[in-house]
Amino acid sequence: MEAPYAIGIDIGGTTTKFGAVTKSGEILYQDIIHTNQFSSVDLFVEELCNHLYAIIEKFGGSTNFAGIGIGAPNGNVYTGSIEYAPNLHWKGIIPLAELIKIKTGIYTRLTNDANAAAIGEMNYGCTQNIKHFIMITLGTGVGSGIIINGNIVVGHDGFAGELGHTIIRPGGRLHSGTGMRGSLESYASATGVRDTAIELINNDPRPSTLRNYLKESITSQVVYDCAVNGDELANEVFEFTGKILGEALANFVMFSSPEMIVLFGGLTKAGDLIMNPTRKSMEENLLPIFKNKVKLKISSLNESDAAILGASALVF
Amino acid sequence: MEAPYAIGIDIGGTTTKFGAVTKSGEILYQDIIHTNQFSSVDLFVEELCNHLYAIIEKFGGSTNFAGIGIGAPNGNVYTGSIEYAPNLHWKGIIPLAELIKIKTGIYTRLTNDANAAAIGEMNYGCTQNIKHFIMITLGTGVGSGIIINGNIVVGHDGFAGELGHTIIRPGGRLHSGTGMRGSLESYASATGVRDTAIELINNDPRPSTLRNYLKESITSQVVYDCAVNGDELANEVFEFTGKILGEALANFVMFSSPEMIVLFGGLTKAGDLIMNPTRKSMEENLLPIFKNKVKLKISSLNESDAAILGASALVF
Repeated sequence: MEAPYAIGIDIGGTTTKFGAVTKSGEILYQDIIHTNQFSSVDLFVEELCNHLYAIIEKFGGSTNFAGIGIGAPNGNVYTGSIEYAPNLHWKGIIPLAELIKIKTGIYTRLTNDANAAAIGEMNYGCTQNIKHFIMITLGTGVGSGIIINGNIVVGHDGFAGELGHTIIRPGGRLHSGTGMRGSLESYASATGVRDTAIELINNDPRPSTLRNYLKESITSQVVYDCAVNGDELANEVFEFTGKILGEALANFVMFSSPEMIVLFGGLTKAGDLIMNPTRKSMEENLLPIFKNKVKLKISSLNESDAAILGASALVF
Repeated sequence: MEAPYAIGIDIGGTTTKFGAVTKSGEILYQDIIHTNQFSSVDLFVEELCNHLYAIIEKFGGSTNFAGIGIGAPNGNVYTGSIEYAPNLHWKGIIPLAELIKIKTGIYTRLTNDANAAAIGEMNYGCTQNIKHFIMITLGTGVGSGIIINGNIVVGHDGFAGELGHTIIRPGGRLHSGTGMRGSLESYASATGVRDTAIELINNDPRPSTLRNYLKESITSQVVYDCAVNGDELANEVFEFTGKILGEALANFVMFSSPEMIVLFGGLTKAGDLIMNPTRKSMEENLLPIFKNKVKLKISSLNESDAAILGASALVF
């Protein structure tokens, strides 16, 4: 009999979420630990596995599990390792899939977190019948999962799909994490929205409710709140962000000609404020043969579920 | 018995080349007609097929042919049509594969010219054991063929791989064909090299042998000749072209993480003059996980052969 469950694990810089998932995409149980409170990866794996043992027992033992799937920043599907993740405490190459497989005795696979989200979308979200799409995650950073012909693109070494680091404004804004200038992530992430807001406050003389906040306390949420209350400068932050994101999306379309682009993550909560200028700018920057063909959508999956679902789909 | 031959046809804006090819990639016979001397596609097809009949007869009749493969600008592999090709006289959608199949009675497939070149490279060139590569054709324009997992990327509609039209300098140089600003093709094509040379002559006061030429007579070949003779400004043209091309290649690497990028076409005759600044700029713009991994090479195939070989490989 086929094992009815899998474990999906989503490792983020702050929290690690995990759950027991059925093949049809129901999360029966989920829990969370804090990723960065563990000084070594061994302590992290020990705590995580203690939780996994409890889940495995709760659902009838390891023979009931098809495997353990993990989505992680800089995760490499070929090696099962996290490699040089800038947002995690553990440095270098961490063979995480192997460490967890040894402890649990269960088949374990690992991939990049944005790829896991794209796999989740393809199996359980709004792209279930779509063979060519790109998923862009707009969170603290900008991640991406690229699907061509129903397969995730991993490239010759497992690292494909780093679209957040493509340069869209040569010589532009400095990315403090990578030292690169003008990458998509410096503009179209939550951090980028904050930075754009601060630039506008500094350089644009117009009055704005954004000026009521200490600069340190401005977040993409604050900009959103001001924008929906009609603040002109705050609206311009989203216009600018959408313009740059749309230009980048147009470039991606001319690479792989997807049927759909799915946006995912915190910034999508801004809804039309970000979607309208993004769509407009994408269309303006496409060759005629691509115009008015690519659907631009917000993911239909709950954010915290998608990565767990996608990770679990790695082993089903 | 398997048919031993195929016909490969390479349609360009100026000439259409075609030949009889063996499965091992030997071109036994080839000929040429002038694409744009025919006012209608019907006249073109009639003349082309008259040549094809002679070839088919010469090599023992149609049962000896696995098929006819065609590489054409804006060729769509799904429909077998040339769709809105800006460089051809015939406008709209031309169902060329069908027209030729009706006349010859032989199985016919058509694809984009740059995709045909990439397929030729994969079957007969320097990427025979490489499953992930990008081929960039640097001619009058900039074309591309993207190979992922040994398959050509065509996207949901057959139009993927228009990397020459990705925007690499937002708001930059106007492309007279597309009306877009700052696309790769406006800089990294033969036309782009000429335009960069004229810009430098106009804006840089240094003496240069380029100034001995009428502006109308400056070509990428002239710039090359001046550069190899030590002209500083002409060398700077290639430095600048390579810088921009390298930035674009870095973006492409972060999309599909290829093992190799193969450059092809007229501009590659400049050799190290273009390759050295391109490689340097690509490396400078890559995330650490991609650095010093991607091989950058010039195609090992003779330019006029590659497209015929690639087109024939469509039907073998």
